Amino acid sequence: MEFGWSGAEKKIARRAFERALDSELQALLAEFKAKAASIDDPRSVWDIRDWLSKRQRQIDELYDFRYSQLSFVFGRLVRDGKLAMSDLAGLSEDKLEFIQRVVDL
Amino acid sequence: MEFGWSGAEKKIARRAFERALDSELQALLAEFKAKAASIDDPRSVWDIRDWLSKRQRQIDELYDFRYSQLSFVFGRLVRDGKLAMSDLAGLSEDKLEFIQRVVDL
Repeated sequence: MEFGWSGAEKKIARRAFERALDSELQALLAEFKAKAASIDDPRSVWDIRDWLSKRQRQIDELYDFRYSQLSFVFGRLVRDGKLAMSDLAGLSEDKLEFIQRVVDL
Repeated sequence: MEFGWSGAEKKIARRAFERALDSELQALLAEFKAKAASIDDPRSVWDIRDWLSKRQRQIDELYDFRYSQLSFVFGRLVRDGKLAMSDLAGLSEDKLEFIQRVVDL
């Protein structure tokens, strides 16, 4: 499903995308700091390292700004509570409907 | 350079090796916690992850308990201040001389 994106829509998309990514990374940072502060066994650092690698793969996979992927990405972000549909106000009706369908999957 | 290791020497070696590794890992844990506590930019977590991976490779490479490697390993540990020659008291004279030569490299 390919949509055309107007300049105004690209700005809305970029802003919503960056907002979700920032809040994802802030949550990651907080969780990381809590994990780091709570360990006592030095070997647990390797578990945290592996957890970070897994989180990085997940984040890289989810936050894909290609316009061909973006409606799916927004659908997943709204579904996961990382964006609200209202963050996407201003996108075309057909995109919003598509995103809502992904949310409802 | 292959040495034979008596049962008593193996015990001394194992104890010294574990002591050095424990203190290496405790220092790593302390450094990790300090790094984790000090970052504010979420993207710094990836730097810490990469640093942990590098440290793990270094530690895995250094702490090689094969008897064929152990005299080199002890030499490096003493040279780096992670063990004292006195931790190795009870090893045969030829091993201690060999280790001292590695220390002096």
